[in-house]
Amino acid sequence: MREVGIGIAGFGTVGGGVLSILSRHAGDIEARLGAHLTVKKVAFRDAGKSRALDVPASVLTTRVEDLLEDPGVEVVVELMGGVDEAFALVTGALSRGKHVVTANKALLATRGQEIFRLARARSVDVYYEAAVCGGVPIIRTLRESLASDRINGLVGIVNGTTNFILTAMAERGEAIGPVLAEAQRLGYAEADPTLDVSGGDAAQKLCVLAQLAFGARLEPKDVLTEGIMRLSPDDFRWGREFGYTLKLLAVARRCEPAGSGPGGKDLVEARVHPAFIPQGSLMAGVRGAMNAVVLQSEALGTSMLYGQGAGAMPTGSAVVSDIIDLTRNIMAGSPGRVPLPPEQSLVELRPHSEIRCAYYLHFSVKDEPGVLARIASTLAARSISVAAVQQREQADASAPVPLVFVTHQAREADLKAAIAEIDRHPATLNPTRFIRIESV
Amino acid sequence: MREVGIGIAGFGTVGGGVLSILSRHAGDIEARLGAHLTVKKVAFRDAGKSRALDVPASVLTTRVEDLLEDPGVEVVVELMGGVDEAFALVTGALSRGKHVVTANKALLATRGQEIFRLARARSVDVYYEAAVCGGVPIIRTLRESLASDRINGLVGIVNGTTNFILTAMAERGEAIGPVLAEAQRLGYAEADPTLDVSGGDAAQKLCVLAQLAFGARLEPKDVLTEGIMRLSPDDFRWGREFGYTLKLLAVARRCEPAGSGPGGKDLVEARVHPAFIPQGSLMAGVRGAMNAVVLQSEALGTSMLYGQGAGAMPTGSAVVSDIIDLTRNIMAGSPGRVPLPPEQSLVELRPHSEIRCAYYLHFSVKDEPGVLARIASTLAARSISVAAVQQREQADASAPVPLVFVTHQAREADLKAAIAEIDRHPATLNPTRFIRIESV
Repeated sequence: MREVGIGIAGFGTVGGGVLSILSRHAGDIEARLGAHLTVKKVAFRDAGKSRALDVPASVLTTRVEDLLEDPGVEVVVELMGGVDEAFALVTGALSRGKHVVTANKALLATRGQEIFRLARARSVDVYYEAAVCGGVPIIRTLRESLASDRINGLVGIVNGTTNFILTAMAERGEAIGPVLAEAQRLGYAEADPTLDVSGGDAAQKLCVLAQLAFGARLEPKDVLTEGIMRLSPDDFRWGREFGYTLKLLAVARRCEPAGSGPGGKDLVEARVHPAFIPQGSLMAGVRGAMNAVVLQSEALGTSMLYGQGAGAMPTGSAVVSDIIDLTRNIMAGSPGRVPLPPEQSLVELRPHSEIRCAYYLHFSVKDEPGVLARIASTLAARSISVAAVQQREQADASAPVPLVFVTHQAREADLKAAIAEIDRHPATLNPTRFIRIESV
Repeated sequence: MREVGIGIAGFGTVGGGVLSILSRHAGDIEARLGAHLTVKKVAFRDAGKSRALDVPASVLTTRVEDLLEDPGVEVVVELMGGVDEAFALVTGALSRGKHVVTANKALLATRGQEIFRLARARSVDVYYEAAVCGGVPIIRTLRESLASDRINGLVGIVNGTTNFILTAMAERGEAIGPVLAEAQRLGYAEADPTLDVSGGDAAQKLCVLAQLAFGARLEPKDVLTEGIMRLSPDDFRWGREFGYTLKLLAVARRCEPAGSGPGGKDLVEARVHPAFIPQGSLMAGVRGAMNAVVLQSEALGTSMLYGQGAGAMPTGSAVVSDIIDLTRNIMAGSPGRVPLPPEQSLVELRPHSEIRCAYYLHFSVKDEPGVLARIASTLAARSISVAAVQQREQADASAPVPLVFVTHQAREADLKAAIAEIDRHPATLNPTRFIRIESV
């Protein structure tokens, strides 16, 4: 039986999952593939951790170069994280004609183009199902199933940490501080949670998805990115009054009209931010650390993929499914079977100021005559149309009055200008809060 | 550029969608595949319909044999429906070494084994993404993504017609008669809706899914199948009181303990019936004619695929994605790249009497002392434990009193024996209604 040699770099949670799945399902995988997958090398940093799994000592190494130098390693599995070392390993592997499986979204979001170019030049494959939403087969779906479709939009809950936090805040009415601390205690958030709670992780994933969905070449810095730290229990309470729940969404969408960008390309918007969505919607049912991506496409209409976004086994399973796919290509002598994203960007990014959304606006004003009228007319002057208003009677007339507006679709630049004007007025006691509303 | 010849049999809704996608995306598909897909023959029954699409007259034929006899047709796309003629076409194609794409679940559910055996013998491929849940890539997911996982259960809303009807009944409180009539008027239900409303269509799909998920060899007659015609607005109202909504579910699941069937095989249960599910669950959010399948697997945990189950474009898109995949195999010279379901059944069917579910029980009894106690003790004697009870005061003491029980998990045979005993009692005025409860 043909043997395919695997080298794994990084022996953390996901690496452990991969080794465990490969050994437990060895028989099944052989039967399906007609090939035997042999783990030739496992490179790791911390010698102590290596004892957790049943891997022969001869396979273990602390030098990632060993994976590159071993001619028996045909597939390099990069699970190191970080960008620079991972880039060196991946490009080293590709330039030696080895195929690559990576779970590294940061690497792909920032240096994906160079990696794909090299893979094309060397006629080898790069698979990365585990880079986005762990066990949710969104990469495969975008790469394969939709080859004959045109995707017009994608909206995802792609960060399990923030969804865990927002679900707990929604269900228990607590502030973000204690909920984040609990998420850290339970292992859902890292000791330094910045990348997750800032939306940065979701922005990296959005870049990877937008490339496959639209042929967009985006880097995280191109994505409008707002995190969840400024959200308060009050936002959840007000949202509920209007029938909304709060999620951190990653949104990428073609803008109307088609072909209105430079060179007749389509414009796309790309943004990651907290958003109100209708309580009864499918996305609202995505709770805890789960992930989901909703696609809007021409032929399929609305579709959704849902599953666990992280964890040793879900992510490990995605890595193994990539290894199996790659092995099928190797056995069939057909690398490059599924094309990588296009070299040139097929679309242009729309400036964030041109985004059009419905908005929730929370004004904090003095309880005096004419305030409501002035705010309404400031909005109207910028063509911002109001869908709903709510003001509650206050017991204490000297306290700021919360005044909440929900708008119809408006242009982001108009909205921000209106807020700036309203916030300059002496009757406005605190800066106005706004949250975008999505209908997914 | 390499040309791959396609022959399409059946020129109905889906056939039109396929032709439209192939022509609109011809450039994209060529660029991705490095091959040109040419529709060589389109066989149809009704000459009148052929005019709707822009196909050269030379391609059209009323003889499906033309597809088989044309050596330029490498891929036969069977969209005829029905079993006998479709079987003849598909086996004719396979035995001539042509690959097959089919959207025909009835064919696969009843004669799939013969078709797969022939395909294996001739080293050609059979693809059938469109056979189950149209645009939802469930077949691909089961065949490919989960190659390294073990699936323990699947629960699907796989029939759009019944989901449309149940959604309307739930939201408008109407009886099934007028809602079915409306579904027919809108094209969601056929003139003869029997196959859909009886659960028969869902049972066929469940057979196809269970074969991929578990290696089960089931025919529709093996599936416990109950339709939706007996459901009343009253069931929806009562369900709502207990926090449930009603869906027609297709369920296939490995039973505990593993390996407890004959020959040490796993037992699986297979059933299609209306079920109460929690109002806040993901499945409850699957509304109208949409489809969804929830998978439970060892590595991935819970995952869900959601999308349009029917329609020219979603189903056509699934067919075209199969054609593209097949063409990749042809170009790479690697037919049989993804294995077909195993020849022998890997699992055994558990007798339906052994199913364990929670149940909703609706008794209709005389308003007299001791009735509640007797029903409760009859259930207890069969080890059926009660989770909730509700009885309402009646204005008219002579009218039957509705008495609703929700049970914990119980064995189906015990439950039916208890109902039979209760229904024999003179205080029971109408046959007891029961609806199974699922927690998806």
